[in-house]
Amino acid sequence: MLFSHIDILDEQFCHRRDCFVAVENGRITYVGQEAPEGDFGEVYDGSGKLLMPGLVNAHSHSAMTLMRGYAENLSLSDWLNTRIFPFEAKLTEEAIYNGTMLAVAEMLRFGVVSTTDMYFMADANAKAVLETGIKMNLGVPVTCFDESHLRDLPVYGEWMDAIPRLHGAGDGRLLLDLAVHAEYTSTPRIVEEVAQLVKEQDLRGHVHLSETRAEHEACKQRHDGKSPARYFRDLGLLDVPTTAAHCVYVEPEDMDILLEKGVTVACNPMSNLKLASGFCPAPQLLERGINVALGTDSVASNNNLNLLEEVKLFAALFKGTTGDPTAITPRQALYAATRAGALAQGREDCGLVKEGFRADLIVLDVAHKAYLYPCHSMENNVVFSALGSDVCLTMVDGKVLYRDGVYTTLDPDAVCRKAGESVERILAQL
Amino acid sequence: MLFSHIDILDEQFCHRRDCFVAVENGRITYVGQEAPEGDFGEVYDGSGKLLMPGLVNAHSHSAMTLMRGYAENLSLSDWLNTRIFPFEAKLTEEAIYNGTMLAVAEMLRFGVVSTTDMYFMADANAKAVLETGIKMNLGVPVTCFDESHLRDLPVYGEWMDAIPRLHGAGDGRLLLDLAVHAEYTSTPRIVEEVAQLVKEQDLRGHVHLSETRAEHEACKQRHDGKSPARYFRDLGLLDVPTTAAHCVYVEPEDMDILLEKGVTVACNPMSNLKLASGFCPAPQLLERGINVALGTDSVASNNNLNLLEEVKLFAALFKGTTGDPTAITPRQALYAATRAGALAQGREDCGLVKEGFRADLIVLDVAHKAYLYPCHSMENNVVFSALGSDVCLTMVDGKVLYRDGVYTTLDPDAVCRKAGESVERILAQL
Repeated sequence: MLFSHIDILDEQFCHRRDCFVAVENGRITYVGQEAPEGDFGEVYDGSGKLLMPGLVNAHSHSAMTLMRGYAENLSLSDWLNTRIFPFEAKLTEEAIYNGTMLAVAEMLRFGVVSTTDMYFMADANAKAVLETGIKMNLGVPVTCFDESHLRDLPVYGEWMDAIPRLHGAGDGRLLLDLAVHAEYTSTPRIVEEVAQLVKEQDLRGHVHLSETRAEHEACKQRHDGKSPARYFRDLGLLDVPTTAAHCVYVEPEDMDILLEKGVTVACNPMSNLKLASGFCPAPQLLERGINVALGTDSVASNNNLNLLEEVKLFAALFKGTTGDPTAITPRQALYAATRAGALAQGREDCGLVKEGFRADLIVLDVAHKAYLYPCHSMENNVVFSALGSDVCLTMVDGKVLYRDGVYTTLDPDAVCRKAGESVERILAQL
Repeated sequence: MLFSHIDILDEQFCHRRDCFVAVENGRITYVGQEAPEGDFGEVYDGSGKLLMPGLVNAHSHSAMTLMRGYAENLSLSDWLNTRIFPFEAKLTEEAIYNGTMLAVAEMLRFGVVSTTDMYFMADANAKAVLETGIKMNLGVPVTCFDESHLRDLPVYGEWMDAIPRLHGAGDGRLLLDLAVHAEYTSTPRIVEEVAQLVKEQDLRGHVHLSETRAEHEACKQRHDGKSPARYFRDLGLLDVPTTAAHCVYVEPEDMDILLEKGVTVACNPMSNLKLASGFCPAPQLLERGINVALGTDSVASNNNLNLLEEVKLFAALFKGTTGDPTAITPRQALYAATRAGALAQGREDCGLVKEGFRADLIVLDVAHKAYLYPCHSMENNVVFSALGSDVCLTMVDGKVLYRDGVYTTLDPDAVCRKAGESVERILAQL
């Protein structure tokens, strides 16, 4: 495909007008202001449109779309214990597949090309990914409360079975991470054994870290004053590239660890607000050079997968929390929602509109909309004025998966219906 | 018009399925589950749709759409002094009309049926309101830094001229308020004289109050320890129904005053974040029984007029600031964006889906959208999952002003083009 006469956000996330972008064999082969020579298949008329890197959701639990709006305005413990956990206990492979399909339909509609997920039942998630063409880094999480060895846990068998079958499947679209749910749902021995396994398998890690004050403080009490970051570092889990979700209560020494170990912080501002968890120190993390990527967390605490909404919140919220209206620039927010997430996933050639990169691209329709007018700055308009519904094309590895309301790899009405049937079956059991 | 087989949010903002709502002569004449007898003109097929009260923007400066994205990531003083004020100094009647038309186009698209505005040049604003069919409470603000008398200020002449011509124009759609910009841009004598005039004219007041810590503290220093709320109260300005925008730094005694005087607080969470002003104590205000309505503030600090986005932020942000995930329910957020704003405007018969009320209504298309599926709770989905772009019909006083991308009283492309021309003319002078 050749995008012609289209505005773009270039690799510095600067707005450039009237460009040509060629896509061949899943990659971007040309970016420039002159029309390239050659036959690229369809010529896409880009007038009134903006081409930018596809969004990367750095932390989610896709299948939890089934719980959208199911549990609101509850304390975290009531939310988990009276609503989320009982519902999750009834989830089947089919329900998780249906929930993940619903999430993929939503993400593609909102321009999300890749997601870093933590959820159960690898095959159910994988099936949705492989069928639809989206990208996912999937970590099936360890939870363990006793003195078991890792290899005695069901998840070990699931991993050992899934890794050779699924890691790198779909031409690399599906990658398996190894996930430890959190400090408070694991034991030191287990964390150490997972760390060893991640290294042996040359995979990436994913963990919840310092999401709530209670979690952070209880960890220090349990482990001789060690914060979750220090706890995981000391047990070797951060020796491989890791995504640490939330990091709301990280202290300065924790930030040193995150930087030294090259950990990506997946910031989930809406989820942290909704669950009243607190405010991630995102500006300080960025200032230290830590890779900060942006996530939605699950729909149960958001309640959508509209990452562009998160971009605006990310760009505005931390001005409020720091009292500094210059905290977090629009370009930093765009980077966090694209390139930072791709790097966290180990996808070095994703997340930028750049020659040689994977064609994970989205198009926003920015014409004929009063709320995107005037356009003093396209970057500012995308971050602060645009809506997720302005995405009119989502392309992954050069393949159009969503365009002008039409999906090429899924039937949205069937996806919604099947998800609804799974919900009904679960509710009938509660 | 008869809305048939449509889901609604009723007067308690509860979701009721499969209802009929009849509109005649600008008012809602029937709400129920049985089809009413009679001829109501068009029958609107409401399957897959949700009817709810139109949104009311409780604090805005509409014409500032011309400055969308023009000034980002600046300190408040740089933002005002190097960008906003120089731009505003070049505004003409025509530019303000064009900017207001652009705002109206955006608001109608996002389901805003009425706005409380504070801006200059009443006739330019009024022209846009009267042409388009939206509702507005318009306050042309007093600013005065010396010992002038009110009647010596240009605004006095403008008011005296405009009030008989414009107050109640358009069958009551346009109402004039009297506005004092803020404590720091006025003098006690002027405030006293405005207060007297508001009472004489039986109008409503509009003021910026305790938006920033600096403003709040400087007021106390200037006026023997009196906060802005106490200052305005003592000068008589709060003796008439008043909208106080922001109220970020109000203290407990200020809340007593706001409650006693029946002042509406217009909360603008996104603007307060973007300008790093702080966090309104909205949950405490609500708990005390103060009327809290929701505003976008101007596009220059938002950067859109998408009030549904503000609803989600309002419902989530104060959970974060208070640490209480039960703070502000979805229904409180919906009320703040509708009925609370209508009451603040003195429009007692607006803001609810209720027999006898004005037909200021919007329809959301909630079908066939993955991000609105499943629907465990329609209220939760509207607040936390829906987008402003889900609005598919906006009706004011029974007249459809926007429907499925089509406006009935304005040409959006011409509106955008003219606004762009005004911007170009201003930029050429800067």
